[in-house]
Amino acid sequence: MTGKNKNIAIVGAGLVGSLLSIYLAKRGYPVSLFERRGDMRKQDAGGGRSINLALSNRGIKALHEVGLADAIRKTAIPMHGRMIHPADGQLNFQPYGKEGEFINSISRSGLNIVLMDEAERLGVEIHFNQEVESVDLRSTLLKMSTVHSRQSTADSGLWTVDCGLIIGADGAYSSVRSAFQISDRFDYSQTYIEHGYKELTIPAVNQQSTVDGRPLTIHALHIWPRESFMLIALPNPDGSFTCTLFFPFEGEISFDKLKSKEDVQLFFRKYFPDVIPLMPTLEEDFLSNPTSSLVTVRCWPWVKGPQTPEGGTSLLIGDAAHGIVPFFGQGMNAGFEDCRILNDLLNQYEDDWEKALPEFQNQRKPDTDAIAQLALDNFIEMRDLVADPEFILRKKIEARLHQLFPDKWIPLYSMVTFNETIRYSEALKIGRRQKVIMDELMAKPQISENWERIDCEEIVERLE
Amino acid sequence: MTGKNKNIAIVGAGLVGSLLSIYLAKRGYPVSLFERRGDMRKQDAGGGRSINLALSNRGIKALHEVGLADAIRKTAIPMHGRMIHPADGQLNFQPYGKEGEFINSISRSGLNIVLMDEAERLGVEIHFNQEVESVDLRSTLLKMSTVHSRQSTADSGLWTVDCGLIIGADGAYSSVRSAFQISDRFDYSQTYIEHGYKELTIPAVNQQSTVDGRPLTIHALHIWPRESFMLIALPNPDGSFTCTLFFPFEGEISFDKLKSKEDVQLFFRKYFPDVIPLMPTLEEDFLSNPTSSLVTVRCWPWVKGPQTPEGGTSLLIGDAAHGIVPFFGQGMNAGFEDCRILNDLLNQYEDDWEKALPEFQNQRKPDTDAIAQLALDNFIEMRDLVADPEFILRKKIEARLHQLFPDKWIPLYSMVTFNETIRYSEALKIGRRQKVIMDELMAKPQISENWERIDCEEIVERLE
Repeated sequence: MTGKNKNIAIVGAGLVGSLLSIYLAKRGYPVSLFERRGDMRKQDAGGGRSINLALSNRGIKALHEVGLADAIRKTAIPMHGRMIHPADGQLNFQPYGKEGEFINSISRSGLNIVLMDEAERLGVEIHFNQEVESVDLRSTLLKMSTVHSRQSTADSGLWTVDCGLIIGADGAYSSVRSAFQISDRFDYSQTYIEHGYKELTIPAVNQQSTVDGRPLTIHALHIWPRESFMLIALPNPDGSFTCTLFFPFEGEISFDKLKSKEDVQLFFRKYFPDVIPLMPTLEEDFLSNPTSSLVTVRCWPWVKGPQTPEGGTSLLIGDAAHGIVPFFGQGMNAGFEDCRILNDLLNQYEDDWEKALPEFQNQRKPDTDAIAQLALDNFIEMRDLVADPEFILRKKIEARLHQLFPDKWIPLYSMVTFNETIRYSEALKIGRRQKVIMDELMAKPQISENWERIDCEEIVERLE
Repeated sequence: MTGKNKNIAIVGAGLVGSLLSIYLAKRGYPVSLFERRGDMRKQDAGGGRSINLALSNRGIKALHEVGLADAIRKTAIPMHGRMIHPADGQLNFQPYGKEGEFINSISRSGLNIVLMDEAERLGVEIHFNQEVESVDLRSTLLKMSTVHSRQSTADSGLWTVDCGLIIGADGAYSSVRSAFQISDRFDYSQTYIEHGYKELTIPAVNQQSTVDGRPLTIHALHIWPRESFMLIALPNPDGSFTCTLFFPFEGEISFDKLKSKEDVQLFFRKYFPDVIPLMPTLEEDFLSNPTSSLVTVRCWPWVKGPQTPEGGTSLLIGDAAHGIVPFFGQGMNAGFEDCRILNDLLNQYEDDWEKALPEFQNQRKPDTDAIAQLALDNFIEMRDLVADPEFILRKKIEARLHQLFPDKWIPLYSMVTFNETIRYSEALKIGRRQKVIMDELMAKPQISENWERIDCEEIVERLE
């Protein structure tokens, strides 16, 4: 399929599906988007997905290439670092990178609406309330059914979409991937962590007073690290915060054990006392909001077909190809980077999809495997290490190394978040070498007293 | 569920399902078996599954406990070692263990028939031609549909089986597991290797003449190792051999490249010239027999429920819980061992399933993960290393160590195959320590000349 005469059907009009439709419409393809939910511009259809997200350099670069970065950045709240709320003791601010480097708290639905509006402006047809019944990979046929609201009296008939390319951008529980899964020789894994999550809210009106009398700053990602679990909060433009408790499903201290308002109150009083005055509806929210699970999805291949000369091709992208846990704030950023890289390859191969798609999956797979691992690793850092004096010293030393040798020693968090030209797989590799070097350094006697006198040049050279 | 009043439904009347039904019927439970295929005692229903298998100590022990080991051993052909057919050079026999240790080539269908006959004798009801439509884990309801032969005019209606315990013994592509898979927090992976397999036959009448004029011995497992691929042959009681070619799907030398009778003839002439005179219908068989894939399936948990006080429980067992590649000859043996261990736990907990089942999965999971890994590792040994002089020397040294210190140094193959009291996970762990020690030993200069003078006691002590 070299020409631009074939229809492209993208399943999923979430963030990645919508952005990809923009890229492809700009290349001149006729693109249709199929979305199971209703149009969020007309109704509240957020159900189950997190309310705000951290947009960073990789995502911004992908938005920039379709001319949307500036508009979107205007709605974002810069977060310059982590504000740690220890179990006891002072608030502790840990910058994410150098002066001027920050991540952006952004509304998922706000961003999605901008992307859908732009897609439609470019001629993309978005079909809402369309559920995938089945996918025929051999003849690239999508069988869809219309999901009706209860009031509707319309037909609920099945209909078929015939297209040259099916793209599954339908998330970690992808329907398109189900068709891949029952085809032969499809490697697949879904792996849950022992923690679930629950969203809670700090309303704008309540954020004036914290325990120490000052309001929560909106320019940080707040973390209450408690070793085996944590609470985080991201700011919203209206001054409210969306909080997420990451917490074991089962065990001594777990969701399982918090069944009544009293349980919740006692638990928060013990572990998050400074949060209680900020959350006037804590107990009600806790008991009525869902507890969701956290999964890592890996699979291979991402491309199937064409299996016959006339048949088309199917592709998985974004979370459908590589669902990851949220602890590095890279799920959306990685999905957006997928779109940018696919577009680059279509440029390079002059829209020869039979060359671009195999290259896309081969190039992208090690990078998304790497960010999946980094995201799992970062949970331990966020919930436990950030409160550890040794970890804080490590970060200080690394910041110093980076300051003195900005191109030679880039801390792992910065490589992933602020250096979009470094591949995730490269960041993982370099990060592991850095860790070995830092482990040795930290094992030295009296390092906490002597760290300002270490030979930085010698350390940085060992990385080469 | 402590009492024996609840019905047990086992899905899959293959080897593991049939053996498990015997164990449970002997305990006094009412057991029904549901099998998608027809009754193989009345028709040929082998479709797609390998014809013979290697039964070894773990499997024999499980058969022994239900009183079937002796009857089954009578139909088996002992294989005392590997007969290596090098690309050039002499046949080379490598014993599997000590004198008197052997594995058994056994007919899959013959064994299955013995097990089904015994199950029915004990009162187990076997329902053939029954396909699982859906499994309701919450209320332990099985929705089944009857598979009719084309001639049949009977109803194809759905029916529902209400039971206290559903056991999925329905293999690597388990239908029962599909219900687990769409429940929350079920870890699952399916991983294919790059090789497929194809079965071929050496008829009895042809096995008199090999290249060197002698017949193939029936008391060995024959291997034609060719580094990146291999052919193997297991004997049948009628003097024929069932051969399997393990071969890459794609690439320079692969199934993909063998499309015509000529391709097949040229390929065999180049790599397996001694086999050509033994296979009179080689080209026809090669082109008409299916090429099948090889998958490792891992999942967790194996037990779901009871989710309500009235609800029942569901369990995965055998390949449904841990599908492995065939290279250690342990798929059936591991599944049989599952049955024996579950029975042991029911003894220990006096049929309290709520205690026995969690213990079963916790105990068994590390062992089946271990044999899954060992089976993957053994492919490399079989297809490549067995033809390597260094490997042959290693085996000789290990045999010597085992001979001198029979309880202290047991080669990995023997731990897995002949020592049913050593858990798979333990065998994997000890095997890795042995490998480190042997690697160091093999790196010594002139080891091939000096090996008979090494200090065996010192080596064995390092393992402790």
